[in-house]
Amino acid sequence: MKKIWLFSFALFLSVHTSLAAELPLVEKQVFTTTDFVTFGGETIAEVQVGWEAYGQLNEQKDNVILVTHFFSGNSHAAGKYSADDPQAGYWDALIGPGKTIDTNKFYVISVDTLVNQEPHNPNVTTTGPASINPATGKPYGLDFPVVTIRDFVNVQKLVLESLGIERLHAVIGASMGSLQALEWAVTYPDQVERLIHVIGMAEADPWTIANLQQWAQPILLDQNWNGGDYYGGEAPQQGLQTTLGMITLGSLHPRIVNQLYAATSARESAPLQDIRNNFSIVEQLRGLAAMRAQYADANHVLYLIRANQLFLAGMGETLDEGLARVEAKTLVLPAANDLLLQPYLSERLYQLLQEHEKDVTFLPLEGDWGHLDGVYGVMQHHEIIKEFLNE
Amino acid sequence: MKKIWLFSFALFLSVHTSLAAELPLVEKQVFTTTDFVTFGGETIAEVQVGWEAYGQLNEQKDNVILVTHFFSGNSHAAGKYSADDPQAGYWDALIGPGKTIDTNKFYVISVDTLVNQEPHNPNVTTTGPASINPATGKPYGLDFPVVTIRDFVNVQKLVLESLGIERLHAVIGASMGSLQALEWAVTYPDQVERLIHVIGMAEADPWTIANLQQWAQPILLDQNWNGGDYYGGEAPQQGLQTTLGMITLGSLHPRIVNQLYAATSARESAPLQDIRNNFSIVEQLRGLAAMRAQYADANHVLYLIRANQLFLAGMGETLDEGLARVEAKTLVLPAANDLLLQPYLSERLYQLLQEHEKDVTFLPLEGDWGHLDGVYGVMQHHEIIKEFLNE
Repeated sequence: MKKIWLFSFALFLSVHTSLAAELPLVEKQVFTTTDFVTFGGETIAEVQVGWEAYGQLNEQKDNVILVTHFFSGNSHAAGKYSADDPQAGYWDALIGPGKTIDTNKFYVISVDTLVNQEPHNPNVTTTGPASINPATGKPYGLDFPVVTIRDFVNVQKLVLESLGIERLHAVIGASMGSLQALEWAVTYPDQVERLIHVIGMAEADPWTIANLQQWAQPILLDQNWNGGDYYGGEAPQQGLQTTLGMITLGSLHPRIVNQLYAATSARESAPLQDIRNNFSIVEQLRGLAAMRAQYADANHVLYLIRANQLFLAGMGETLDEGLARVEAKTLVLPAANDLLLQPYLSERLYQLLQEHEKDVTFLPLEGDWGHLDGVYGVMQHHEIIKEFLNE
Repeated sequence: MKKIWLFSFALFLSVHTSLAAELPLVEKQVFTTTDFVTFGGETIAEVQVGWEAYGQLNEQKDNVILVTHFFSGNSHAAGKYSADDPQAGYWDALIGPGKTIDTNKFYVISVDTLVNQEPHNPNVTTTGPASINPATGKPYGLDFPVVTIRDFVNVQKLVLESLGIERLHAVIGASMGSLQALEWAVTYPDQVERLIHVIGMAEADPWTIANLQQWAQPILLDQNWNGGDYYGGEAPQQGLQTTLGMITLGSLHPRIVNQLYAATSARESAPLQDIRNNFSIVEQLRGLAAMRAQYADANHVLYLIRANQLFLAGMGETLDEGLARVEAKTLVLPAANDLLLQPYLSERLYQLLQEHEKDVTFLPLEGDWGHLDGVYGVMQHHEIIKEFLNE
């Protein structure tokens, strides 16, 4: 089954391999700032985040498109790190020379979030509970302050300012990336000209808060988690793997799961013979989760969950007051079969923006992937996105 | 929020309290059999299950309606155990004198399943991993054989035979109950005249197998679970509570959760102040799960999950060959907003039965509860159900 997954990824990538030779290679860079004050009022002595960019910043510095990444992602949105890199950034189908987001025209930039899921990924730089607390010389653990989507945005703003960038031609993000993109448009309305909000929400509703909390539970139940203090010993990898497996399954629609794992059947004999045996799909998903857990940190995942649960665009008293501030022309792209951030969340954003007479377009993405249609299926609207960015 | 839950239950029940005085009280009875051979070919030395019945068995013994229970339920489908019993059986709205399933006419019977979720509930009698293994004098734990929906049905059949009952006027069940009801109609087609299949499936597809497995993980991660061998020590209650919380949330649609927990908000200050703090909805759901865990057993839940994952109506090679055997007139009632056993599962059953030119009607249940519309909302089709049973 891993093969089928890899095959589907390969298919997704193959469209672009022919262009690979022409593409400039991408380099991850690191930004550092000190005394960063969070939305919650805490100070982080030093923040470091990775970032990467594609295309050239023009002289007026007005050709910038910011790409904000999803929960399990990082700033590697497009391109390859080396000529023999097997996989390009996650939206390489969308971003590149001559592509929908044309890097011959735009300077496209992306930044690793705070508390990124993968602090141990050599291509990620992030600051979070696994980082060294300068006050103690040890990892923060749960002493790291709770951070919010607003904080992710404010770190991105500092990165942009360090490059002399004062306004965004557009900001685009999928899933947790859409939260950041919207937060940009609400918090810094005069700096955001266009907003593309893909498979996201404008406010975490009670169901989404409770649903996301389920992802935290396996980590909290792993005895190695030890109240978040595990950096000197065994990490809670079993809990973390279970959590990452839940995130994978929660992002997929039954239709694609039933296609990818069609070999699994209720008739399998091993699970009938012994309660300790698993169905093949369970073993295969576990294998994928173990691969995904390799670079991840359990506490970082808990902090990411929290940032999403705390999301209310504008971080004020009501969503309405936040959305009233948006000035960007907006494109809302929910996935019709999304079971995670369900389309009603995007509909609410669309309706409220309409009530405020904002310039907003609502366009569902069809497909069998569910939530992930926002990543794999976004090209189905490439012409509309291109027009949206260029008019 | 617990209040709102209790309120909604109270509302559900209040319709019938006025009738309580007239209702005969219900008594749980116990059936015992020995050397029960499972579908998997193992022998259980002694099986005991509870059962209850409403109405009178007629002389011809041809007025019997079997009600098969859902995952978290038991044979208490209707009535009260005592005059001051605060809560009636779960389908008391449906079953009783003069009601849709009229106990003035029908003898309605229900049986606790094997590996019932609540072996410690004084009103449940079941046999499973928490039962004493006569070979060792200790609880079976994971030495208990894997059991299937077919085994639940075969135990029910023995109970019915002990009463001299040879055929069913109808069998009706919701969720896991629908699996048993369908298995009856496939396995003993000449003994089942009518089948009402509510919020169920005909075969566990790969997605459902993987989704149900997620419920097992918190138990497996709890160090007290100890490979299923915890009966002499601390039970894995944290894991069990988390599992039961997942089952509750998985059974509900976002719409009802957002209504019941409308006081929860992304703006809550406690979760922003400290990562260790929870949102109010998380605490409230945890409180409910702790109540539900009181009588439950973690291993029993694992075995129930497995029985559902292994379900293929007829337990043969293909679903098609199983459904070809059905003779019962069938009513299929999915919940339109079901996110757990999604309507496509019922549609498949309906389509295959139609292809075999069976007498089948498909009628979705509308509502905001999601999966639980099959329990709380089934009365919306009470006239059709009544007609179906009486024609």
